[in-house]
Amino acid sequence: MLPSGARTSAPCSPRAKPTGGRLRFDGSVLGPRRLVVVGGVAAGLSAAARARRLDPTLDVRVFERTGFCAYSACGLPYLVGGVIQDHKALVARTPGDLAKQGIAVHLRHEVVGVDLLAGRVRVRDLEAGRERDEPFDELLLATGGRAALPFPGAGLPGVFAVRTVEDGLAIRSWLSVRQPSKAVIVGGGYIGLEMAEALRCLGLEVSLVELLPRVLPLVDGEIAGDVEAALVRHGVDLRCATPVQEIAGNGRVRQVVAGGEGIDADLVVVGVGVSPENALAAAAGVPLGVRGAVVVDARLRSRVAHVWAAGDCAETRHRLHGAPSYIPLGTTANKQGRVAGANIAGRDESFGGVVGTAAVKVFDLHVARTGLSEAEALSAGIDAVAATIVHRSRAAYYPGWQPIRVKITAERGTGRLLGAQLAGTEGVAKRVDVIAAALHSGAGVDDLARFDLTYAPPFAPVWDPLLMAARQAQRLV
Amino acid sequence: MLPSGARTSAPCSPRAKPTGGRLRFDGSVLGPRRLVVVGGVAAGLSAAARARRLDPTLDVRVFERTGFCAYSACGLPYLVGGVIQDHKALVARTPGDLAKQGIAVHLRHEVVGVDLLAGRVRVRDLEAGRERDEPFDELLLATGGRAALPFPGAGLPGVFAVRTVEDGLAIRSWLSVRQPSKAVIVGGGYIGLEMAEALRCLGLEVSLVELLPRVLPLVDGEIAGDVEAALVRHGVDLRCATPVQEIAGNGRVRQVVAGGEGIDADLVVVGVGVSPENALAAAAGVPLGVRGAVVVDARLRSRVAHVWAAGDCAETRHRLHGAPSYIPLGTTANKQGRVAGANIAGRDESFGGVVGTAAVKVFDLHVARTGLSEAEALSAGIDAVAATIVHRSRAAYYPGWQPIRVKITAERGTGRLLGAQLAGTEGVAKRVDVIAAALHSGAGVDDLARFDLTYAPPFAPVWDPLLMAARQAQRLV
Repeated sequence: MLPSGARTSAPCSPRAKPTGGRLRFDGSVLGPRRLVVVGGVAAGLSAAARARRLDPTLDVRVFERTGFCAYSACGLPYLVGGVIQDHKALVARTPGDLAKQGIAVHLRHEVVGVDLLAGRVRVRDLEAGRERDEPFDELLLATGGRAALPFPGAGLPGVFAVRTVEDGLAIRSWLSVRQPSKAVIVGGGYIGLEMAEALRCLGLEVSLVELLPRVLPLVDGEIAGDVEAALVRHGVDLRCATPVQEIAGNGRVRQVVAGGEGIDADLVVVGVGVSPENALAAAAGVPLGVRGAVVVDARLRSRVAHVWAAGDCAETRHRLHGAPSYIPLGTTANKQGRVAGANIAGRDESFGGVVGTAAVKVFDLHVARTGLSEAEALSAGIDAVAATIVHRSRAAYYPGWQPIRVKITAERGTGRLLGAQLAGTEGVAKRVDVIAAALHSGAGVDDLARFDLTYAPPFAPVWDPLLMAARQAQRLV
Repeated sequence: MLPSGARTSAPCSPRAKPTGGRLRFDGSVLGPRRLVVVGGVAAGLSAAARARRLDPTLDVRVFERTGFCAYSACGLPYLVGGVIQDHKALVARTPGDLAKQGIAVHLRHEVVGVDLLAGRVRVRDLEAGRERDEPFDELLLATGGRAALPFPGAGLPGVFAVRTVEDGLAIRSWLSVRQPSKAVIVGGGYIGLEMAEALRCLGLEVSLVELLPRVLPLVDGEIAGDVEAALVRHGVDLRCATPVQEIAGNGRVRQVVAGGEGIDADLVVVGVGVSPENALAAAAGVPLGVRGAVVVDARLRSRVAHVWAAGDCAETRHRLHGAPSYIPLGTTANKQGRVAGANIAGRDESFGGVVGTAAVKVFDLHVARTGLSEAEALSAGIDAVAATIVHRSRAAYYPGWQPIRVKITAERGTGRLLGAQLAGTEGVAKRVDVIAAALHSGAGVDDLARFDLTYAPPFAPVWDPLLMAARQAQRLV
């Protein structure tokens, strides 16, 4: 499982200088150092681009299983909903663009095995049906996440996950060819909520089925309540606390059986969670950690020398409790990829960890959260208090102000900020970033209450909602 | 100048308990402790409300020179421009509302003298034309700021400052009665820019005359350039580097003579800066500091026992350089007022200082700043570097994204963040608050580059503009 002695002749030490070639023990010169990247989306290409820019001698080869690289999976609901017309808009760079940066991207190439001793991967060309070996000096696993489809009948035509451009195109095609009128969405997380909006905007009847009592389990009930109200207001048939028994059909999907009831469906979208795409790592014996994600250190090294991992297949350090976590998000993947790439190129950078920031738009409602929710804090054994207020997005006298609900979580006694959740129709996403910044520095509610935040009637009331929430929290801690 | 011996029998020590009465040396009981507040706007009423809430026995009397209390001066341009129809919308609370909280507000009452030895103020009832004495135990100076009108002819009818509700109503009246078609605005600061928008929106021809080479001196040239472009794009005749010689007219304003040229005007608005309204403090011998503002400590105590000051008449501590500053803004006034009120009621709170955050809307352009601009940092002797980038407000593929210019200032060598300035048509004001939060904790550009900020296609690109700017700054420090 550990690399051979020969490979230790070219260790990737943090301060290794970029080199154009390496000496073997026998004095012969190998070719340029080669980085193989498995997965050509956020983490993989961020790493490839950074590594190649810092070390222009590096031979960088990226293998991507799907037919697209450098795409934004977060944009898929907007492709389905027609907000974005052309799927090419989701593709930031093509293999041609990347070739100009010296990065060879092979689409529709699946890495099917890793031989750590020999330092090579087995690659299957999915178009040609052929396999070949590709040697590597450094290997980055950026295989991403896998959508869970844990229901009988999930393989029926008309049942979709939303992970790849192909998924998006398949849903578009199904919409256009089959003209479905009734959609069922299974799962009330980010993807499920965004798909509910997308399909309602296309005029479909939409049922949303969630196993848990509330949608969006990453926020507490007050905020989830706002989300649920937005769904209902926009005509979504919302069914919480409803387990799915099976997806039924004959030749294509016909029904989702949930809570003992059949819900007619000629289109089903499943978004019940993402797990690390770890089959390759597991087979190669690369140690796996939280929820099966590749164990990495702050430099994005796996436990195996010369093997790195970043993005939705890797662990993430949560700054608030310091423990490895699994929070698959595009921002994190990009940041981790950059760090991995820099270190592969010989720098010494570390990933700063996450504080659990995320945002989602649900019709006209904007929702954002960072840190620990009250439920998360309590289940982590932290004596947490929470303050919830509703305040205005602008000065009371300035037309168009909207209510914003702010929930702040803090540690009792110390007043340390633990997190915040906001919901409203404007001024939400970047307001939560103020709390994210505060969490990075370990600020307390007293600090937050003193923050010198912008005030101008069109942008905020003189006491920003965050300050009002901090003042409320001060009374409770 | 110092209080008499008798007054020291009831010192306002930080831990003084709220009391319903005080013992004289001779054992007789005085009435309830009395707080006199000079000025009934942001700082004065914040203090009055907080003090009274914390000590319900306190006798609180507020004297306000104008006919309105608890009004938002920041809303005046929107009143003039018709965004707000009724000036009453700018008044958060009336004397009647405040009376229910146990606060006696006397409008059109000017405090014309302070006798510190006797512990009383001389109050002129501007309606009745009578004067009387009012004793105090604690005195809060919240006299606000005074608009500078440093030009010959500034007293002509048709020349206005924008400080009070009366100013706003006078401009409205002038607009309605005189139907002016040509306005000249003197001064390209916040008020000048907001008034330019207001008057253009009413259909007037507007010239804006600024003494300095650029508008909005609190931002650097790149951002000022965006503001100037917005002004010109919206039809403002912009004249920078143009000193005003005089305001001319006969019976009413006719011209502004600036840069040696006469600019026709039948309405002139002057917004060339605010200075502390310090006449009362100066006459009483209360020590004055930066730009004539009342010297205060973190608890908002002046140098004279039992005399407090807060808001636009008082100094402000700048967290970045620690020095007393004069930055008159409504948010600061409110925060200082709350702290002063708490301390007057016997608590021990301190004002956290400012980091120089401010925002302004100029037509469709949003501008926000915090910390030190590059020019400010350099003139403070700090070896500063600045990174300026333009990035998108949303994902590239998400419709409606707008460019945001971000300039970040940092200290060379240490990488310590010094400030940021943003300009764009969405997502500006609360993004700058992320930097304000970072400045409160003394973060560096490396910290900022790691911030876990929200990402969702409708709200931000995967690399937020702030992160892009941080990455650029990392290369320069």
